[in-house]
Amino acid sequence: MTLAIQAADVRQAAERIRPLARRTPVLTSEEFDARAGTHVFFKCENLQRGGAFKMRGAANLILSLAPEALARGVVAYSSGNHAQAVAIAARHVSVCATIVMPEDAPRAKLEATRAQGATIVTYNRHTAEREPIAAAIIERSGATLVPPFDHPMIMAGQGTAALELLDETGPLDALIAPVGGGGLLSGCATIAKAIHPPIRVFGAEPESANDTYLSLQAGERVTAPHPNTIADGLRAPRPGALTFPVLQQLAEAIALVSEDEIRQTVRYLLQRLHVLVEPSGAVSAAAVLFGKLPKGISSVGVILSGGNMDLDDLASS
Amino acid sequence: MTLAIQAADVRQAAERIRPLARRTPVLTSEEFDARAGTHVFFKCENLQRGGAFKMRGAANLILSLAPEALARGVVAYSSGNHAQAVAIAARHVSVCATIVMPEDAPRAKLEATRAQGATIVTYNRHTAEREPIAAAIIERSGATLVPPFDHPMIMAGQGTAALELLDETGPLDALIAPVGGGGLLSGCATIAKAIHPPIRVFGAEPESANDTYLSLQAGERVTAPHPNTIADGLRAPRPGALTFPVLQQLAEAIALVSEDEIRQTVRYLLQRLHVLVEPSGAVSAAAVLFGKLPKGISSVGVILSGGNMDLDDLASS
Repeated sequence: MTLAIQAADVRQAAERIRPLARRTPVLTSEEFDARAGTHVFFKCENLQRGGAFKMRGAANLILSLAPEALARGVVAYSSGNHAQAVAIAARHVSVCATIVMPEDAPRAKLEATRAQGATIVTYNRHTAEREPIAAAIIERSGATLVPPFDHPMIMAGQGTAALELLDETGPLDALIAPVGGGGLLSGCATIAKAIHPPIRVFGAEPESANDTYLSLQAGERVTAPHPNTIADGLRAPRPGALTFPVLQQLAEAIALVSEDEIRQTVRYLLQRLHVLVEPSGAVSAAAVLFGKLPKGISSVGVILSGGNMDLDDLASS
Repeated sequence: MTLAIQAADVRQAAERIRPLARRTPVLTSEEFDARAGTHVFFKCENLQRGGAFKMRGAANLILSLAPEALARGVVAYSSGNHAQAVAIAARHVSVCATIVMPEDAPRAKLEATRAQGATIVTYNRHTAEREPIAAAIIERSGATLVPPFDHPMIMAGQGTAALELLDETGPLDALIAPVGGGGLLSGCATIAKAIHPPIRVFGAEPESANDTYLSLQAGERVTAPHPNTIADGLRAPRPGALTFPVLQQLAEAIALVSEDEIRQTVRYLLQRLHVLVEPSGAVSAAAVLFGKLPKGISSVGVILSGGNMDLDDLASS
């Protein structure tokens, strides 16, 4: 079966997104290493523009559109980091972005997205679905949909995080990234295995949103009922049609972490590394900190995928 | 009058400390820029090894010692970031470090310093003074004192932060750093003015610990009575004998910020840039955010000097 993306797509994405996405720093911590028993290289996508890796995929798709398509605008549905990323990328190329968000989305996220110049269309998520709303906008305007993960340009864009990381560290024994719909991990696995074939690739999911873990066990995409986790970016109920075959072929396993392990890791990263990582972005670090990887891994790249969270949630966590 | 350090000392320091100090990342934020009305380049010393710029000076002094001196060990008195930096640098060269700390120092700082292998000597700060205790240790052991700021090797080491920053950004209109005893600002000013003579150099102090501000006004070192600020790293009661002449010659002004401005800036940097900066480390950013610099500065390098703080203090700030 042909996979949706190849390593060359990730390399092209890296060139394409350069004007928009930051090359984020790679941090290390002797104290974290001592506690985890392995050398860890943190790729800090929480320090990315827009506060998350989502900037990479959104930029890659939007910057690849032909001028005629761009002129008709872009549409996305998201209540989170993807919305802001699409808004920022669209603004960069002076294109109209319409974001479909639930009317009870956190006000901070609504405002941040609107501040980027995007048009916000809200809906009542108890009485309506977002896909038909987006479809109606697209039919009316001819705008292009920027999906959150299940698109080759999105997957290739997200993979640039691993390309930069390995460019900086050289070969590593392993790589681990959070898994929601699988866009980030599929892109990162594709380029990592191409650069350094022996690298072992892992995903990380909350125990309570383990759809990719279950799907890999079942050998087909299954839906996890009612994902309920503080890692709000990882609540996609099942992996994507394009991302899943990549994960089946390239990911060794999915490490599962508890809600308490996620909370502890968020605090640890803040207190010791001095970086704010949101719960969704910290599940990868949690898996390493709490010994969820197999023994014998002496170096691991950890994608810290985002940092957007309310400080009030930090106090209560 | 000959100043205590020259630019060449900072360049030598950069070579010397390379095995020990990290080259910390430089971050930018369009949102911060929009609010501050200038382009800001944050030099993230809160992401430095040991959590603060203090690593640079301690490493520079300790790595410059002859083997005979090293064998007799090093001594420092500090309840904060300098203690940890000395302990880490000493451990790196397998040298005994003795740190004199008040017995009521925060337990976390005591433990962190002890965890680096240092010997901790505590004293009651209501009934004893730390200098004679350190002097007695030195007389007994022949150990070398590593002072917190008023030493050419310390000043030159701290200046490497500005050297790295300007190497990455190119010429800037201005540079601003927090001022406690003046070690960081004197080193940074020395190298910045050598690299780019038109650069305008500023210090930042809390209004309630404004000893360097007062000293520059008076034209001589004066002692600020009872410095009382949440910026606990900036409570040195007066500038150093060696640092002050450098600041007199190279610093244009000291910007003063209120306690509330410091608190707001710590939260802003955390929420928007996703980095934890301690109050002492954030006074420079506070000065820029709250418009304390003269008009007409279109680019400014801001040293975020450290990140070690209790999360509980964050919640209550």
